[in-house]
Amino acid sequence: MHGEIITIGNELISGRTLDLNGWYAAGRLTASGLKITGIAAVGDNPEEVTKALKMAVEKSGFVIVTGGLGSTEDDMTNEIVADALNRPLCLDKQMFEQIKSYVAARGIEMSSSLEKMAWMPEGSKILNPRGNVCGFSLVEDKVRLYFLPGVPDQMRYLMDRYVLPEILNHVKTLPVLRQRILKLYGLNEPGMAEILKDLPRKNENILLGFYPHFPENHITISLRGQDERTVMRELDKAEQEVRSLLGPYIFASGVESMEEVVGEKLRNKGLTISVAESCTGGLIGNLLTNTPGSSNYFMGGLLVYSNQSKIDLLNVSQEVIEKKGAVSDKTVREMAEGVKKRIGTDIGLAVTGIAGPEGGSREKPVGTVHIGLSTDRETFAGKYRFWGTRKQIKKNTAIMALDWVRRYLNGDPFLPGL
Amino acid sequence: MHGEIITIGNELISGRTLDLNGWYAAGRLTASGLKITGIAAVGDNPEEVTKALKMAVEKSGFVIVTGGLGSTEDDMTNEIVADALNRPLCLDKQMFEQIKSYVAARGIEMSSSLEKMAWMPEGSKILNPRGNVCGFSLVEDKVRLYFLPGVPDQMRYLMDRYVLPEILNHVKTLPVLRQRILKLYGLNEPGMAEILKDLPRKNENILLGFYPHFPENHITISLRGQDERTVMRELDKAEQEVRSLLGPYIFASGVESMEEVVGEKLRNKGLTISVAESCTGGLIGNLLTNTPGSSNYFMGGLLVYSNQSKIDLLNVSQEVIEKKGAVSDKTVREMAEGVKKRIGTDIGLAVTGIAGPEGGSREKPVGTVHIGLSTDRETFAGKYRFWGTRKQIKKNTAIMALDWVRRYLNGDPFLPGL
Repeated sequence: MHGEIITIGNELISGRTLDLNGWYAAGRLTASGLKITGIAAVGDNPEEVTKALKMAVEKSGFVIVTGGLGSTEDDMTNEIVADALNRPLCLDKQMFEQIKSYVAARGIEMSSSLEKMAWMPEGSKILNPRGNVCGFSLVEDKVRLYFLPGVPDQMRYLMDRYVLPEILNHVKTLPVLRQRILKLYGLNEPGMAEILKDLPRKNENILLGFYPHFPENHITISLRGQDERTVMRELDKAEQEVRSLLGPYIFASGVESMEEVVGEKLRNKGLTISVAESCTGGLIGNLLTNTPGSSNYFMGGLLVYSNQSKIDLLNVSQEVIEKKGAVSDKTVREMAEGVKKRIGTDIGLAVTGIAGPEGGSREKPVGTVHIGLSTDRETFAGKYRFWGTRKQIKKNTAIMALDWVRRYLNGDPFLPGL
Repeated sequence: MHGEIITIGNELISGRTLDLNGWYAAGRLTASGLKITGIAAVGDNPEEVTKALKMAVEKSGFVIVTGGLGSTEDDMTNEIVADALNRPLCLDKQMFEQIKSYVAARGIEMSSSLEKMAWMPEGSKILNPRGNVCGFSLVEDKVRLYFLPGVPDQMRYLMDRYVLPEILNHVKTLPVLRQRILKLYGLNEPGMAEILKDLPRKNENILLGFYPHFPENHITISLRGQDERTVMRELDKAEQEVRSLLGPYIFASGVESMEEVVGEKLRNKGLTISVAESCTGGLIGNLLTNTPGSSNYFMGGLLVYSNQSKIDLLNVSQEVIEKKGAVSDKTVREMAEGVKKRIGTDIGLAVTGIAGPEGGSREKPVGTVHIGLSTDRETFAGKYRFWGTRKQIKKNTAIMALDWVRRYLNGDPFLPGL
């Protein structure tokens, strides 16, 4: 069964916005073994949307449409669909109640533009009753149509939670497709390919995919088959083989992020951590605290952006900064020890570096970064060189620092530096 | 004159790769005043490509096609175009020479798959003779068709250097299109729509667009016209009208982010800032330091995630935390004053709140956030309630805190809290 994706929005065809929704929907559907024949981006234009919709219905088993479900005047998907499919717009009571309670909870007033969202083409079914996010489905000539909001978070939520399971449920003849995702840090695509060329390919149906996900790289292992048990057994085997080749480069499988992996390890071992951040400016703390319950292990941190703050807040010695520079192993070592003592945690993690674009020199070019890790037994320090924009250098530094904690807790060696 | 974009590649419809070519071409063409009616991504499939091509030729003045020009077996654009337009494939001598000298320069051998690239539909014109990058154009029923490689760098090079100038050269009657972007914080889409419905619509050609960009909202004001001067004058007028209605909700025009706006204001006034972050865990510092040169005004910060760290590092009194709680106006006030003094800056900015999903209570539900701002004259504190995921609450808190600094420096009142 083939599907089509239609993404609606003037911002897409004017090049103002990248079509993240089309990309996401295509990726999720393909990963589930469904085939997408095309992604059509069209403007907020009834004629164009109608044409795309009619064409898609003619040749597809299902159609995903994103955008145009909001309350402003350029949101016209409901009317366009009603017109195109010759179905009257009806007030959906459930949706109307949903909007009313949303409005009430926030103390704002009901308006005709909000009410508009509850007028849907006859035969529509709300995707998530009792939820806040609007979206609906309908069936036309046996073709399943799904209408999702253009806001990426909302679109993804409905896609993963309702649309994908429902489509898969209706595609009874689909062979089993299962996929594993392994996340790697510290090895680039050519590096991965080089190591994996030795992978014994006993099962030719196993498909490996490589996806850069800066600064990580992800590997997917996919297998299609007739029954779940065989597929899972073969996948287990393949995953074991990949793992034995890539070892500690793999930091997670599935959806876990580096900060979640580190958080879980700290929690399991009953250890606490604090951070001293210079060039990352708070990014490491921000990542660690994205995980619910991080207050169990993350106690706090010091953003020591200026030299003076490194001296005042962390007791880094003025002499070390003057002699070795703020970006040096000596300084990062004192930072890690200082924050561990100052906040009173089991582990102190510190970074200092040059994020650029200014501030580099021949000796210490932009992207030079030092990482320090202080534990109850020992303090480690190391130097790396990262490339890219300011944000990319910050991100790579933060993930490398977290990777140090992960490798330390696992008893693995740190990634080789300079 | 309207145009269409067709992007070819299995990697696009499987969600493996974002369609950067469609986005880039659309952006360049729109910025030049041309209108794109759709971007169609299709797989490396003769049937689908043919269908898309025929449809585009029927309804457009020009068509940009990217992908499928290389030497591997899934590169079939030349053959597909020849078939679809009923033109025989001819060996283009110029292209063949180009390929031969490329091959010779690299010491590789000529092959049939490389030669394939020189067989082009009758009537094709090479876009850049004497260059290394392949691409060609042809005219069918007065429709101009451009075929570009799928490699983004090469595609962009040909697009900017050959395609865009040639199209603009042929579209003598082209109207001018200009656009303004205004970024808002603190007003949701229904709120904006409500206020803007009073906008005097003297010029019916002015088009307003609304784009949620959590937690911000963006407005675009677009106008098409015959000459640049008139269009700019009308746009100026429209922008002034929108600005007079939305006032300080607008924090930036164009591409600037909230943290850049705040940074620029601090720098212009020669003021320094430090942050004390509880629930945001470092996000405010991270945002501020994303801007190059932020070390001129951002001195550092304290991540006081635990109650004890608030007391130890910021001198928040134990009594206040016990009586009023860590999430309170009293605490955030002491945090702002504490960090300002501790790091020695002109402004101290502090946040404390409950990011969830755990930790809420009836009195202080998840999403309750307090913001504090301490200056040389006064300390302000206020309470807000945000909705959404943990990350969304953190993000909204960080942007609200930065908005406080912006509004304080502008002499505008803070957004009303609870």
